[in-house]
Amino acid sequence: MEDILKATLLYDFYGELLTQKQKDVFEYYYFNDYSLTEIGEEFDISRQAVSDLIKRTENLLLGYEKKLMLVKKFDIQKQNVRRIKNLAEKIEKSVSSLAIESAVSEIKAIADEILD
Amino acid sequence: MEDILKATLLYDFYGELLTQKQKDVFEYYYFNDYSLTEIGEEFDISRQAVSDLIKRTENLLLGYEKKLMLVKKFDIQKQNVRRIKNLAEKIEKSVSSLAIESAVSEIKAIADEILD
Repeated sequence: MEDILKATLLYDFYGELLTQKQKDVFEYYYFNDYSLTEIGEEFDISRQAVSDLIKRTENLLLGYEKKLMLVKKFDIQKQNVRRIKNLAEKIEKSVSSLAIESAVSEIKAIADEILD
Repeated sequence: MEDILKATLLYDFYGELLTQKQKDVFEYYYFNDYSLTEIGEEFDISRQAVSDLIKRTENLLLGYEKKLMLVKKFDIQKQNVRRIKNLAEKIEKSVSSLAIESAVSEIKAIADEILD
């Protein structure tokens, strides 16, 4: 996978759908930073087999995301909550009641969007 | 499944992981309110086969939720956002700046909890 962050994020969401071996090898590689050769020694399989297993696992995770898009959905929700937090900070600094009113109605609109 | 709402919610989350046939039968049963017999006629299988297929599909969906708990996680997020919305409404009605301050800091705390 191009990007370690993406791989580990997908693993956080869909890792439980993998087999124990897929999980173990994936974690050695992405979380514990073992080399393919080291993992091969650990599991008593060839370097190539490790590489295939990781590739297959990545494709499985990408396949789940393509179907369910839960990483994407959670990310959008987080962005919205971040906007709410910024608005709350704006209210804290506001002295005009008009500015407070406007920030509050924005917070409500974002909340409704999430709850919809 | 005991509860139609739960079945359809699970389907919303994990339905894309089912086969086309599982999806079709599930939708006929839960969304279009067809009887087992009617679905059997539609798909040219026995009433019993329809019943087994639906049971198996329900178990698949429950299995995904047991592993990933995404319905539960989304539900908790929604509860939190609902609390934020209530606090925003409290601010709208507040005249004391102390009450506003307290509601704002609660909103920020909830947002941080979600973003954590």
